Amino acid sequence: MSNKVLILTKNAARYAELLTAAALPDLTMIPAIDLAAAAPVVADCQIILGAPGLIQSVLPLAEQLQWVQSTWAGVEVLLRPELRHDYLLTNVRGIFGPLMAEYVFSYLLLHERGVLARYQAQQRQHWDTTLPGTMRGKTIGILGVGSIGAFIAQTAKQFGLRTFGYTRSSRDCEAIDQYFHGDELLQLAAEVDYLVCTLPTTAESHHLINAAVLDVMKPSAVLINVGRGSAVDEEALLAALQQHKLALAVLDVVEQEPLPAGHPLWRAPNLLLTGHTAAPSFPEDIAPIFIENYYRFVAQRPLLYTVDFARGY
Amino acid sequence: MSNKVLILTKNAARYAELLTAAALPDLTMIPAIDLAAAAPVVADCQIILGAPGLIQSVLPLAEQLQWVQSTWAGVEVLLRPELRHDYLLTNVRGIFGPLMAEYVFSYLLLHERGVLARYQAQQRQHWDTTLPGTMRGKTIGILGVGSIGAFIAQTAKQFGLRTFGYTRSSRDCEAIDQYFHGDELLQLAAEVDYLVCTLPTTAESHHLINAAVLDVMKPSAVLINVGRGSAVDEEALLAALQQHKLALAVLDVVEQEPLPAGHPLWRAPNLLLTGHTAAPSFPEDIAPIFIENYYRFVAQRPLLYTVDFARGY
Repeated sequence: MSNKVLILTKNAARYAELLTAAALPDLTMIPAIDLAAAAPVVADCQIILGAPGLIQSVLPLAEQLQWVQSTWAGVEVLLRPELRHDYLLTNVRGIFGPLMAEYVFSYLLLHERGVLARYQAQQRQHWDTTLPGTMRGKTIGILGVGSIGAFIAQTAKQFGLRTFGYTRSSRDCEAIDQYFHGDELLQLAAEVDYLVCTLPTTAESHHLINAAVLDVMKPSAVLINVGRGSAVDEEALLAALQQHKLALAVLDVVEQEPLPAGHPLWRAPNLLLTGHTAAPSFPEDIAPIFIENYYRFVAQRPLLYTVDFARGY
Repeated sequence: MSNKVLILTKNAARYAELLTAAALPDLTMIPAIDLAAAAPVVADCQIILGAPGLIQSVLPLAEQLQWVQSTWAGVEVLLRPELRHDYLLTNVRGIFGPLMAEYVFSYLLLHERGVLARYQAQQRQHWDTTLPGTMRGKTIGILGVGSIGAFIAQTAKQFGLRTFGYTRSSRDCEAIDQYFHGDELLQLAAEVDYLVCTLPTTAESHHLINAAVLDVMKPSAVLINVGRGSAVDEEALLAALQQHKLALAVLDVVEQEPLPAGHPLWRAPNLLLTGHTAAPSFPEDIAPIFIENYYRFVAQRPLLYTVDFARGY
């Protein structure tokens, strides 16, 4: 029995190369870089590999659909109640931790070492001997300790940080020094020097970082959001930044992307915006997950990284 | 028998606090923040704790001198042949690794993630989705694998880098994947993505990074010098930068500090200067080393981190 996979992403050609090299049995590949290319061919496909934002548009046409492998970690657009949920949905996990850690420590170090101010001093030909700060001995609070949060925690330990983790109930990451759950978020927020959000979009994470949380944070604290924009109440953040209630916010994600021209966040003090680039999906990282899952699919074994439509992750 | 220690550093008051708290036996402390304060009192002191640049000036007056504890790792000014070498010289080691690693990875990540360009895009209110690079899978070459080089190597492994080490002969750091010695520097330089120099000033390290080394480096490579300025041939580096033979150089140290106004390095392309701030000597880190060594000194046991005047480290 033969399978057809629609590869629906702007990197479709690269995925087709990588999957061809893997010589997967009984699989026909149909690369499509956009919806116009995908629409005429999706009806015959049992499998779709690609970007959730594109896939959602072709779901009604996918008559044979059995399995969707997302190339992104965040699949919330596919979870919307009005869409069909009668297929296996898998996302990618375990590969974004290193990239997310590079992002988080890039900006924490930028802050502590005063890199931007020193760069500006150099433009004035000033030999700037201002002492830097250090991350060592500081406390990082990580909201969400999945594979991404765990990797950030491990990297934090290498740099000599104390690590707090905020989870629904799990407590199984050895690199987390202390766990917090539920209402203990305020206690965590009050104690940390760095608050890093890795949460996906769920009902519980919506505006979890609100005025109450921002109010208790140290004025020297740094907030980083690499999860989803919906986790931060942007109106409350804007007010907190304007009142210097925290030292720096770094947002890779915002509620409306791209951030519209004229949005007040563009002019907020002590805010860095990074255009949802924290952890790109490199095909070289993602193809091996599809390959492993394809072998499981044909053998009718459980797939890796299945998403529960109700739970949201 | 009673000892007197001259504390000769601009942080003398803080050191005096920390040593007072330690209640060291039979020790009188004489804090001095500059040479004017030190000159009248140094003759009676058996011990000097402080900055090598200040200490060198009072050496001729220190009639009772037995031991100098440097607050810096780099003590080359005290090694000059015209100065007396008839005392025990100890420096500080093992404490700069974490700070140096923060510095090195701050700038490697700044480079890979395109932080400066993205910051400039934000000033134009442009939602910049340019994909970042990644350190993962890249190769770092570390010149000098003492405690600083070893800590940089461990941090590199956490970020998924391959690690090369360049040493005179030692091969005992587990975080180094491959060692190079002597003439193999060119082979190392040709293969690495990042070349990080942690070397002290010695005869062998003088202009070790010369035109021949810069010539074989990848045009995409990054050079970071956190050792001593003398290790880099600045004329050769300037030419290499102007010809785009490497992507970025980050110099914490230069041959003449502070870098004089009008020096051509100020206008070199793709060069970042950081004012010898990579690893400041925090009194809280250094006082415990003096305290341990003082107990050894009074017990006439070997001191920690003694410097061999001939070998230079």
